[in-house]
Amino acid sequence: MIIGKPTPGVMGFTVERVNALSDGVFAVAITLLAVGIAVPTIHGTVTNAKLAHGLAELWPHFFSYFLSFVIIAMFWISHHSLFSVIRRVDKMLIWMNIFYLLLIVFMPYPTILLSLYGKTTVATALYASVLAAAGILQGTMGFYAVRGRRLVDDDFDLREAGAYLRNAFMMSGVFIISIGIAFASPTIAQFSWLLLFLISLVERLISKKKRAEPGTETQEV
Amino acid sequence: MIIGKPTPGVMGFTVERVNALSDGVFAVAITLLAVGIAVPTIHGTVTNAKLAHGLAELWPHFFSYFLSFVIIAMFWISHHSLFSVIRRVDKMLIWMNIFYLLLIVFMPYPTILLSLYGKTTVATALYASVLAAAGILQGTMGFYAVRGRRLVDDDFDLREAGAYLRNAFMMSGVFIISIGIAFASPTIAQFSWLLLFLISLVERLISKKKRAEPGTETQEV
Amino acid sequence: MIIGKPTPGVMGFTVERVNALSDGVFAVAITLLAVGIAVPTIHGTVTNAKLAHGLAELWPHFFSYFLSFVIIAMFWISHHSLFSVIRRVDKMLIWMNIFYLLLIVFMPYPTILLSLYGKTTVATALYASVLAAAGILQGTMGFYAVRGRRLVDDDFDLREAGAYLRNAFMMSGVFIISIGIAFASPTIAQFSWLLLFLISLVERLISKKKRAEPGTETQEV
Amino acid sequence: MIIGKPTPGVMGFTVERVNALSDGVFAVAITLLAVGIAVPTIHGTVTNAKLAHGLAELWPHFFSYFLSFVIIAMFWISHHSLFSVIRRVDKMLIWMNIFYLLLIVFMPYPTILLSLYGKTTVATALYASVLAAAGILQGTMGFYAVRGRRLVDDDFDLREAGAYLRNAFMMSGVFIISIGIAFASPTIAQFSWLLLFLISLVERLISKKKRAEPGTETQEV
Repeated sequence: MIIGKPTPGVMGFTVERVNALSDGVFAVAITLLAVGIAVPTIHGTVTNAKLAHGLAELWPHFFSYFLSFVIIAMFWISHHSLFSVIRRVDKMLIWMNIFYLLLIVFMPYPTILLSLYGKTTVATALYASVLAAAGILQGTMGFYAVRGRRLVDDDFDLREAGAYLRNAFMMSGVFIISIGIAFASPTIAQFSWLLLFLISLVERLISKKKRAEPGTETQEV
Repeated sequence: MIIGKPTPGVMGFTVERVNALSDGVFAVAITLLAVGIAVPTIHGTVTNAKLAHGLAELWPHFFSYFLSFVIIAMFWISHHSLFSVIRRVDKMLIWMNIFYLLLIVFMPYPTILLSLYGKTTVATALYASVLAAAGILQGTMGFYAVRGRRLVDDDFDLREAGAYLRNAFMMSGVFIISIGIAFASPTIAQFSWLLLFLISLVERLISKKKRAEPGTETQEV
Repeated sequence: MIIGKPTPGVMGFTVERVNALSDGVFAVAITLLAVGIAVPTIHGTVTNAKLAHGLAELWPHFFSYFLSFVIIAMFWISHHSLFSVIRRVDKMLIWMNIFYLLLIVFMPYPTILLSLYGKTTVATALYASVLAAAGILQGTMGFYAVRGRRLVDDDFDLREAGAYLRNAFMMSGVFIISIGIAFASPTIAQFSWLLLFLISLVERLISKKKRAEPGTETQEV
Repeated sequence: MIIGKPTPGVMGFTVERVNALSDGVFAVAITLLAVGIAVPTIHGTVTNAKLAHGLAELWPHFFSYFLSFVIIAMFWISHHSLFSVIRRVDKMLIWMNIFYLLLIVFMPYPTILLSLYGKTTVATALYASVLAAAGILQGTMGFYAVRGRRLVDDDFDLREAGAYLRNAFMMSGVFIISIGIAFASPTIAQFSWLLLFLISLVERLISKKKRAEPGTETQEV
């Protein structure tokens, strides 16, 4: 069985090209984040003190860049692990993936808003909304693909999907809750996103423990 | 038979690299759309009301981004399905593909014009013209590749090509007609583009029904 | 024989990743050309006449975009056909390829200069110099790879390389000569670049005739 | 054994997609360097003298572009050679790779600072710090992957890793030392980076000599 190839002689879609477009989009979106960082303008003679001061004032830009980079990377990891088990794609999955990429590609925009107007509820809630929507789509794609093993192998272990879905919806959950928090305090909302890293860390420890148990299949070839 | 490899020892072209360049171009073009969205400038103290107002005023930017993203995605899907049956490429197809990509890559430009000057016939007609030309090239590439099964497998089902060509020329048709409409009303012309989504939806339902009929080959591996 | 894989257990380079980086760079460079096109600024009420006039005044931008897109595409085609016969890469080829990509990536810059200051010898000569250097590197890479069949298959047909090298050095030749012409007339120098398309067309007709002769291997799988 | 595929039916990560994202990120980062180069503004009539003068004044931009391009290329080559022996990826390596890419993607920013404020200690030290950190991560990834042959083949030759690690840490070493030098003289610090090219050249000559010795495995297929 050749993976991800449509029936010969029939027009169809390949997992390979969906991955190629997705990786390209992730790579460009992640790189454009850095383009949004302003360069300090220095009036008069250029000195170390002025440049250091100018850069220090831009810290919300650096923070937003770092934050968005890591969050988009988390989405990429999740996308990557889903598509590692997908064996065929249909038009429905392709369109879900396209709307998902639309949100990923849009991310540099709320990132710039956050670095410029990070103290407002509007910028914070918009940022969280885009990521909440991306998380929901991520989960929905996984659910659609594995239900009845529609797009995965016949021997696909459904427990694997459980961890994936839990992770995707937990990510959306954090962002949805933070939208509410943003109305009280944008700063606290932004800190709540750090929860994601903790969740991800805890998940890793749990799954590591599981893998270490005897009789469990390891991830190695 | 290794797909898309030229005769060993002879310089030639591979489907693989044509796909790689095309996917790269689609990914970058689709991502640059978002770069064109203006960031609201706020005078005086930053407040939620001012930021929300500034974003609301930019709705034509968001609409154009969304529209172009979905349309380019439709082109990518069509390109993807054509190249899923192409087994070899020649210089003619490569050049048609390059001029096709030239139009795709150009799209962020008419998209910005549309968001800035969306009420003019000029911006609307230019936008539609680029897409009409891309659609015609898309159809022509398909016609060139399948005629006499020039670049496809010997067992390629020509009925498949029928659906593809109908779709490509229907896309161009909608855009060509909308150029005419744009002279009467740019707004109506823009709404006529939504026809594409309806056509695509109807097509999907029809092809789904067909696939469900007994004896039809399914798209699954 | 697995193509382009280094000896197992030894660190090395793969043709695959050199292609991946090159295609990515070509795709981004070709897309950034369009980003350089200025958007017309309209003072007062927006009208069709003003927008049409603004766009018409930008024709050198559109011309430069079109020109650079087609020229970079020609380089990509040439790169593509060279690497279709390369079976292994060494550090020397990788560095030549990197300096070659450095010039391709730089192209959006002379393209903008050409659209802004196209009537000057400086902009025209700079544009031609970058492409002349790229053409020389393209030829040198081919020469290095095929000499003694260093990086190609043992059964590689050296006559193939002849056509490739002739093409690469003819491309550089046109650009080098045009640098001289630019000192007399930048406009004539720019028109001389159209020679490339004629050369390429003539080459195609010759190679087509050759292929049509009996006993010649065709490019098909 | 299929390289880089996770256990069938289990969600995992593939070397292939990590490479795809990395190559995409390298390609975009390397291309965006050129975007930062300013275009000379000419007041009054455009003349060759004014344009040549304007371009000449921008030489720090061209120098920074060239420098960063070559340095990022050196990182890409090193990344490429590491991943040519990696057979499986785990979450730890993926995250190290993501933070490594975060630094690569960030490079256009210190590059612009260097071309604008190259005479300051701040810009020079920041530039060197980002690359020192990238070099350390590069080395750490290699160390993590080969220790106990964790992510490489069972027959992986550990002496190969020695050369790789020496190279990675020597790169970081040069940048770390240059941070110190930058406090005395930014210009000397920048010249010290040229050491890298010398080191790389010497390394090449040494490894060439080694390869030429009888009984050594060559890199060819």
